[in-house]
Amino acid sequence: MEFEEKTLSRKEIYQGPIFKLVQDQVELPEGKGTARRDLIFHNGAVCVLAVTDEQKLILVKQYRKAIEAVSYEIPAGKLEVGENTAPVAAALRELEEETAYTGKLELLYDFYSAIGFCNEKLKLYLASDLTKVENPRPQDEDETLEVLEVSLEEAKELIQSGHICDAKTIMAVQYWELQKK
Amino acid sequence: MEFEEKTLSRKEIYQGPIFKLVQDQVELPEGKGTARRDLIFHNGAVCVLAVTDEQKLILVKQYRKAIEAVSYEIPAGKLEVGENTAPVAAALRELEEETAYTGKLELLYDFYSAIGFCNEKLKLYLASDLTKVENPRPQDEDETLEVLEVSLEEAKELIQSGHICDAKTIMAVQYWELQKK
Repeated sequence: MEFEEKTLSRKEIYQGPIFKLVQDQVELPEGKGTARRDLIFHNGAVCVLAVTDEQKLILVKQYRKAIEAVSYEIPAGKLEVGENTAPVAAALRELEEETAYTGKLELLYDFYSAIGFCNEKLKLYLASDLTKVENPRPQDEDETLEVLEVSLEEAKELIQSGHICDAKTIMAVQYWELQKK
Repeated sequence: MEFEEKTLSRKEIYQGPIFKLVQDQVELPEGKGTARRDLIFHNGAVCVLAVTDEQKLILVKQYRKAIEAVSYEIPAGKLEVGENTAPVAAALRELEEETAYTGKLELLYDFYSAIGFCNEKLKLYLASDLTKVENPRPQDEDETLEVLEVSLEEAKELIQSGHICDAKTIMAVQYWELQKK
C-alpha cells in the first residue's frame, strides 16, 4: 500500500515568532487525486518530569491564553531557533528558570503534540538528583508562574479535576505512576 | 498572585478548514506590560483506545504531512463544526470508518494537545465490547489507512522504535499498561 503524499506546491501564509503556517497542495497516494493540507511548523519544545527526593512532582501553575484559563503543567519551554541540537541544555534552562531546580536528565519520550496538522516535537525528560540552584536564571519577562509540589495521588486528583489538562503533563504523570508500580 | 492575560485586541490572520490563526495583544498580569500571543483555534478531536478481546490494541497506520512520515496511531478524528455536543457519536464514527469496529465508549481523558499556542481539545475514549461492523462507513476520501492489531509489548516496541510518535497514542498505551498492572 502506498501512503506518501507528494508536495505539489507550498504557500507560506504566515511567519510568526512561535510558528509558521503553510498551505500545501499534495498528490494523494493510489491515484486518489489531490488535497490541501494546512500545516503549522514549530521549532519544537522540551518538558521535564521532575520528582523530588520526597517523591513530589514539580508543577508550574500558569495562564494559557489559548484556552483562557490557568493550568498546572510540568516545566516546559520552546526550543530557540538553532537550539534543536542542544535540547538537554534547553530542558535544564527551563527547569532552572521555572522552578529553580537543576538535576540529571534522561530522555523518556520524543513525540509530536498535534501530529494531524503540526510538526511540534516535544522531548520529555526525567530529571533526577534534583538540587536547588542558588541564584537561578530569572523567569521570562512575559511569564507569571507559581511552582508547586504534589504527590502522585494529588497529581491524579488534579487530572480528575481538570487542573492538569494537557497531554505532556498527563503523559508524565502516567509515566511516573508506571515507574512506581 | 494574578495570572490572567486580558485581551486588548485580536486580529484574525487566517481561517482555514481545520483551524484558525489569530493574533492577540494582551495585558500581562501584575503590571508587566503587554505581549503578543499567536494562537491556533481548532474545533477539537476525539481518539479511541480500542483493545480487542484478544488483548490487542487497534492501531491505524497513515501518512502525516506535517511530519512527512508514516505513523502508527490510535483511531482519531476531528470534530466537525457543531459536533462538539456529540463527541461520543464522533468517536464511534471515527472508530467505525477507520477500523470497522464498534463498541461501548467510556471517557478517559479530556486534554489539550498543544496548550502553549493551540486550543485543540482531545477526548480519549476507552472502547470495550468491540464487534466488527458488517457494512462499515467508508474511510474519508483523502485518507489512506492500514489497520493493525498489536500486543502491549509490541506497542511499547513501536514507541521505542519511533513508529508510535504522537502524544495521544503514547498516552493511550500508558493508560492500557496501567490498567493491566
